[in-house]
Amino acid sequence: MKQDNNIPYKIYLEEQEMPREWYNVRADMKNKPAPLLNPGTLKPMTAEELAPVFCEELVTQELDNDNAYIPIPEEILDFYKMYRPSPLVRAYCLEEKLQTPAKIYYKFEGNNTSGSHKLNSAIAQAYYAKKQGLKGVTTETGAGQWGTALSMACSYFDLDCQVYMVKCSYEQKPFRREVMRTYGAKVTPSPSMNTEVGKKILAEHPGTSGSLGCAISEAVEQATTHEGYRYVLGSVLNQVLLHQSIIGLETKAALDKYNIKPDIIIGCAGGGSNLGGLISPFMGEKLRGEADYRFIAVEPASCPSLTRGKYAYDFCDTGMVCPLAKMYTLGSGFIPSANHAGGLRYHGMSSILSQLYADGLMEARSVEQTEVFKAAEEFARVEGILPAPESSHAIKAALDEAKKCKETGEEKTIVFGLTGTGYFDMYAYESFHDGKMVDYIPTDEDLAPGFAGLPKVE
Amino acid sequence: MKQDNNIPYKIYLEEQEMPREWYNVRADMKNKPAPLLNPGTLKPMTAEELAPVFCEELVTQELDNDNAYIPIPEEILDFYKMYRPSPLVRAYCLEEKLQTPAKIYYKFEGNNTSGSHKLNSAIAQAYYAKKQGLKGVTTETGAGQWGTALSMACSYFDLDCQVYMVKCSYEQKPFRREVMRTYGAKVTPSPSMNTEVGKKILAEHPGTSGSLGCAISEAVEQATTHEGYRYVLGSVLNQVLLHQSIIGLETKAALDKYNIKPDIIIGCAGGGSNLGGLISPFMGEKLRGEADYRFIAVEPASCPSLTRGKYAYDFCDTGMVCPLAKMYTLGSGFIPSANHAGGLRYHGMSSILSQLYADGLMEARSVEQTEVFKAAEEFARVEGILPAPESSHAIKAALDEAKKCKETGEEKTIVFGLTGTGYFDMYAYESFHDGKMVDYIPTDEDLAPGFAGLPKVE
Repeated sequence: MKQDNNIPYKIYLEEQEMPREWYNVRADMKNKPAPLLNPGTLKPMTAEELAPVFCEELVTQELDNDNAYIPIPEEILDFYKMYRPSPLVRAYCLEEKLQTPAKIYYKFEGNNTSGSHKLNSAIAQAYYAKKQGLKGVTTETGAGQWGTALSMACSYFDLDCQVYMVKCSYEQKPFRREVMRTYGAKVTPSPSMNTEVGKKILAEHPGTSGSLGCAISEAVEQATTHEGYRYVLGSVLNQVLLHQSIIGLETKAALDKYNIKPDIIIGCAGGGSNLGGLISPFMGEKLRGEADYRFIAVEPASCPSLTRGKYAYDFCDTGMVCPLAKMYTLGSGFIPSANHAGGLRYHGMSSILSQLYADGLMEARSVEQTEVFKAAEEFARVEGILPAPESSHAIKAALDEAKKCKETGEEKTIVFGLTGTGYFDMYAYESFHDGKMVDYIPTDEDLAPGFAGLPKVE
Repeated sequence: MKQDNNIPYKIYLEEQEMPREWYNVRADMKNKPAPLLNPGTLKPMTAEELAPVFCEELVTQELDNDNAYIPIPEEILDFYKMYRPSPLVRAYCLEEKLQTPAKIYYKFEGNNTSGSHKLNSAIAQAYYAKKQGLKGVTTETGAGQWGTALSMACSYFDLDCQVYMVKCSYEQKPFRREVMRTYGAKVTPSPSMNTEVGKKILAEHPGTSGSLGCAISEAVEQATTHEGYRYVLGSVLNQVLLHQSIIGLETKAALDKYNIKPDIIIGCAGGGSNLGGLISPFMGEKLRGEADYRFIAVEPASCPSLTRGKYAYDFCDTGMVCPLAKMYTLGSGFIPSANHAGGLRYHGMSSILSQLYADGLMEARSVEQTEVFKAAEEFARVEGILPAPESSHAIKAALDEAKKCKETGEEKTIVFGLTGTGYFDMYAYESFHDGKMVDYIPTDEDLAPGFAGLPKVE
């Protein structure tokens, strides 16, 4: 294979080249993301109001719109060294297969047991919980990616980890549950008899298989009613995007080593944690007028918050117990079709990314899932890695851009985020292989009830 | 975390530091491994006799006891660059947890979609098949690790890949089957109606759930009765150990970079491909009198070929269609207890390793599986990686050696092979978590029938 100017297949940073600070893109945004609102008073949430739910330092990070760089504590750097830096891979084999003049890179976050980038924030949140002297944390998980990451992080810091896992996933997808148990987490199928909200739902719907909204409500109740516990969340929040900036910082450092300037940066978008983390330092340059890049958020056609949502204040959870956030949203009552495989099923989008999108600093597109799985398989067969369905949204867009370059002859440099592996998504691959996977694009009528349920906030 | 002389958590080789030749330990062995015998004539198999089953260049490699270094073809080096070098990890967190003065390193081969070191030989075997102008290859697989590796390799070289998967695994463990299908392999539950041997077995045992022995027989028949096909095997053979020497060569190069001399090198042992590959270059130094190391093979107590087997000629397969190999064996009729989780269930051991063990150049020990899973969990919780059950045999021995160092105060350097990840072994972890895992040590009476079935060869 011809290699380009001795650029290796995989660019790894040396330990001493690894970032030692997270980058907070809010500091460089002229239009700051809208603040979280107290759903009762409709006034911005204060640190005091957030403290019963989140750890102190995470509250500080959540509200910090000013400091561009936040030092990463040594203990977190140590943990990062176990699985980071993640490789920035030059997709030589894919380029050759496509016969494209484009140069394609991907930042691969799947080489850790949680199988995704989620661990980057899980370890930070666990660290601050430990530092505050807490006993443990609670969270919810659907298929279990975030729960796995958090259980690994808690195990490392010897923190109790209580995960409410949507009952149907708990029963039908036992593998991630067992991974969590390996790391010592207590995994409870939700709804459960542990909480008042769980008991209430079980009384009303005895046969329910649960929902993410219900699991969130149970996790929040568990945290706020037990001494020494806080609730943690794996995406959407400003603090999470801050931690995930490690992805973009490493990517930029690796590209800078070889004097590579990307033209297009692509990421899949659910709540926004990976995309926000990947693009942050590049967006910072764009905001400061130092460089220009195209950023493309790729979301499922079945859950199109950026491309078809409204930019409005909404509840972060279906149970409506959390603060209001201003974001592109389909309404907190929106639930993607049961046919939708994998994650990227959140009704809203990170406030930071929503503001950047509203300001025209980022593009968005939606793609249908059979096309996504086609792209995933094409990628797997030449690059080896079996991608997660979520990550494959970015692959689909990267392939499309690379094929455009083939038509135009442009030698564009494309970077995309490969957030994780698909080892626990083989049922979805099976349905794709068997020709049983279907696409679903909600009609305007399908979306109307979600929009109608938006809270009235001026 | 205190780091030792600036030795990083993970030592990666630069692309230009990667080995460009495999090392053939047979060249340095005074007592060569015993040759394969034709089961009919009891004479050494010739290249001509092996050619209908294996690719030409692989036959040459199989029979080559003389050349110490075999250049790795460029096409294979390109593929290696996609997932290699694998990291040599300094287990700082584990050392701290154990409070041991020992320095522990592990060579982690799990960072690729096949989830293990098997890919190192799969890509080589696929390459030589392609080079010979073949249409495809056939093989058998149990749980699917080897089949996955081979399907990835065949996909890369656009070769047809036909995998006979033991029927009960095909039905009960659909995930690896779907991974193989993602890479375009044809996966057939065995026994099948594709082959004469399959039809015969199905006629005799209509409800059978299959066995590895039967799958081997079907794969061999499929290869030898179809123009342009050969059969490939993932362990045991000399050629496989040759390809797997990449593990040891990278390990040695990484250690040499930091002037580290290991005292003890540990690997799990089933057919011997990982252990043989890991120790090869170090064993070469020992054979040439340039250095001394302790080598420890770790095998399951339920399938103890080295520690309790006989050193004798035996069939390589339960169907008795393959050549005879001299090895430590429990008899080709031996099948480990159904309770035994994961791989390392082969009745014999690589002829190379068997000869080295017979010559006193290597130690062996057996461990029980509940202890293995305890070690796996202890390791996962501090080092993050969720290990495969097979790899965890080496972890168990490494932990034991590190604990000994704590008692004696010796600062030994321990290197072990972490062959893969356990993502597809969560049923075994579940049985461990639920306290349902049991140990099984065969009695002498249990082993007697296997020994009685050994062929009579002088």
